Amino acid sequence: MSERVVAKYLMETAFPIEQAADVIGGEQSSGTFVQVPGETADLRERFRARVEEIHVLETVSEPSLPGGGVPTEGGGNYTRAEVTYSFSLENMGVNLPTLIATVAGNLFELRDVSGLKLLDFDVPQAFAERYVGPQFGIKGTRELAGVFDRPIIGTIVKPSVGLTPDATASLTGDLAEAGIDFIKDDELMADPPHSPLKERVEKVMAVINEAADRTGKKVMFAFNITDELDTMLEHHDTVLNAGGTCVMVSLNSIGSAGVAYLRKHCQLPIHGHRNGWGMLTRHPMLGIGFSAYQKIWRLAGVDHIHVNGFRNKFWEPDDSVVQSMKACFKPFLGGYEVMPVISSGQSAGQAPDTYKRAGSVDVMYLAGGGIMAHPGGPASGMKALSQAWEAAVNGIDLETYAEVHIELKQAIKKFGNLF
Amino acid sequence: MSERVVAKYLMETAFPIEQAADVIGGEQSSGTFVQVPGETADLRERFRARVEEIHVLETVSEPSLPGGGVPTEGGGNYTRAEVTYSFSLENMGVNLPTLIATVAGNLFELRDVSGLKLLDFDVPQAFAERYVGPQFGIKGTRELAGVFDRPIIGTIVKPSVGLTPDATASLTGDLAEAGIDFIKDDELMADPPHSPLKERVEKVMAVINEAADRTGKKVMFAFNITDELDTMLEHHDTVLNAGGTCVMVSLNSIGSAGVAYLRKHCQLPIHGHRNGWGMLTRHPMLGIGFSAYQKIWRLAGVDHIHVNGFRNKFWEPDDSVVQSMKACFKPFLGGYEVMPVISSGQSAGQAPDTYKRAGSVDVMYLAGGGIMAHPGGPASGMKALSQAWEAAVNGIDLETYAEVHIELKQAIKKFGNLF
Repeated sequence: MSERVVAKYLMETAFPIEQAADVIGGEQSSGTFVQVPGETADLRERFRARVEEIHVLETVSEPSLPGGGVPTEGGGNYTRAEVTYSFSLENMGVNLPTLIATVAGNLFELRDVSGLKLLDFDVPQAFAERYVGPQFGIKGTRELAGVFDRPIIGTIVKPSVGLTPDATASLTGDLAEAGIDFIKDDELMADPPHSPLKERVEKVMAVINEAADRTGKKVMFAFNITDELDTMLEHHDTVLNAGGTCVMVSLNSIGSAGVAYLRKHCQLPIHGHRNGWGMLTRHPMLGIGFSAYQKIWRLAGVDHIHVNGFRNKFWEPDDSVVQSMKACFKPFLGGYEVMPVISSGQSAGQAPDTYKRAGSVDVMYLAGGGIMAHPGGPASGMKALSQAWEAAVNGIDLETYAEVHIELKQAIKKFGNLF
Repeated sequence: MSERVVAKYLMETAFPIEQAADVIGGEQSSGTFVQVPGETADLRERFRARVEEIHVLETVSEPSLPGGGVPTEGGGNYTRAEVTYSFSLENMGVNLPTLIATVAGNLFELRDVSGLKLLDFDVPQAFAERYVGPQFGIKGTRELAGVFDRPIIGTIVKPSVGLTPDATASLTGDLAEAGIDFIKDDELMADPPHSPLKERVEKVMAVINEAADRTGKKVMFAFNITDELDTMLEHHDTVLNAGGTCVMVSLNSIGSAGVAYLRKHCQLPIHGHRNGWGMLTRHPMLGIGFSAYQKIWRLAGVDHIHVNGFRNKFWEPDDSVVQSMKACFKPFLGGYEVMPVISSGQSAGQAPDTYKRAGSVDVMYLAGGGIMAHPGGPASGMKALSQAWEAAVNGIDLETYAEVHIELKQAIKKFGNLF
């Protein structure tokens, strides 16, 4: 097992960059501040993390993070660099939790850096033997949803909290009638007393199954099964047995080991909600970049992962959203297909840009208010989104297309501020 | 179920603070950018997150995080405040993963804030019905380790990687001979090819059991069982069946749901390693404070949790370490006893300050190099630490005590730079 795990970081340091880069290598070998008995040169050579490449970037006058020491040379500035390491697979074995402890463990803490972000990583093919990855991916999801050659268009049940199972089922009925492809629970709505998952599944699936029998189209509903693990598996079975076709989990709450555990048992696509992600990435010099983050979840077996959307209600710039979508489209370990989920403040208006920059229709395109608050009701909201994507794919200007598509025209009028 | 979850944040915003505070309440009710059908005033009142208190702090001229908008009033400054919310338990039920999605979910992303840190939270007593919490805590750990009225003194097997089971067992023998209380695997050493956990447990426990039979003292060894969950439980059983008395997991890699799953099955204390924690907390205006963080793990059932140490090798200042220790000592839900683990660049020199400021000996005090690289060998390193704590507890000056304790004197000479 001589293969190596590669990990790339954005680093900032008050110290000479080679020295700071080396400390991380040390933290991954002797792991203490002095040479210890048993730590031979041979052993260090074989197991130590290796600095593979240092690409020096700009210098800055203020440190990004506290506790990083004071510059001792270089004009009192802090140096930034992209630093690539390799770690011996022998150190961790094929073990995703220990891989995480290695590439995203006690490194952010080091006072030798005043900024550290894990940008990306790659693992040897050996990981594919233990981690089978997403079960459905884009292709399998499309087959279950019966949607091809265009985005899977969907919505989130809103309000996030307070709706009864009957109210959710009634809303689902309206949306199914409108021809929607996909509906998901909000991440706050798992198994609360006012809407127990079992009852919600029963009532929602009755409506979906009835509509499917009638129209031949079964709406994919991602039920939020986020819970303690035994209960999560029970909830999965409840969804499966009721004829459901998707389950959703809050990735950061469940953890990669919990998701991998679900994946072993799961017979449905896993819809990965990344709530809490802002904490891990919003600072440019701390945490994890999405390219690395999504690989963890693809290894764990997630089929869909949220990537935010253009002109979203969050902090994230469009360029970052584009990079996230592209990261999802890039094959990992030769496959591990994951479907990016676009959402947050979306309506018809963002479709053309999204299509242009994603370069693909292999996305889920979710709008909450953009569908539910359409002046003509949810059915019109759904139609407006379909029309927007038709225009985008066919290269027709949105305003022009809206001239002959009333729902799109209404959407542009109401949500115009989002363009 | 009218009880409420309370959560306190440090917030920074370009906008009027009441307005920004309100957006988070909104994100937790309608959860979208426009009023939607079905969202009645009654429903909002009952389920909406409530702003309970706003305590305005300083203003700053530069935003802590990107994407937070531009100040529209107040002299172009960004306002900081402590904001306390309450969330209806009805929204989430007694569900730790969904609690996390609620109090630490899609809030850090909001462009209405340019900084957000979850400082603390509290849950209603109903959580105690589902989450039994730590099984051993301080009292149970002391009984298993046979150490009372002083810190449990221990070390980490170093180097972090590369040692064979035989080498680890041999080192363990030396340390057991020296009278050490506790040894732990490094977080990088779980079940790698060069030291399979099963073989390591077998060889290490043979040495520990033999020493225990001879001396009556059984060293507590925290085996790193971090892995996919089925394997993790198998590893737990391996440790238990070999007579082991502790298991360790990388908390952030396993996740709260994975740890709660282990807790259900577990018959040994869970030693919680927080590697990766720097990513969540090092920026003062982003992420989670330790007070909130450690409550998640106490609910999940962790018995020991790492808190860093004084004058550590990481970025963390001593005041922050003191706060973390005190957070652990504070009863949660009337108990949920957790033992703080002090480590990182520790040697004899930090004992007096640690005792003075922690106000307690109910800690684990771990030294890697501080024991292993002692000039007289690990046995002398162990003795030096015991002597340092004796001096601390008895209020004797360390230098004075070292006059008549040779191992302490040697430690001070070698590691003096850490004082």
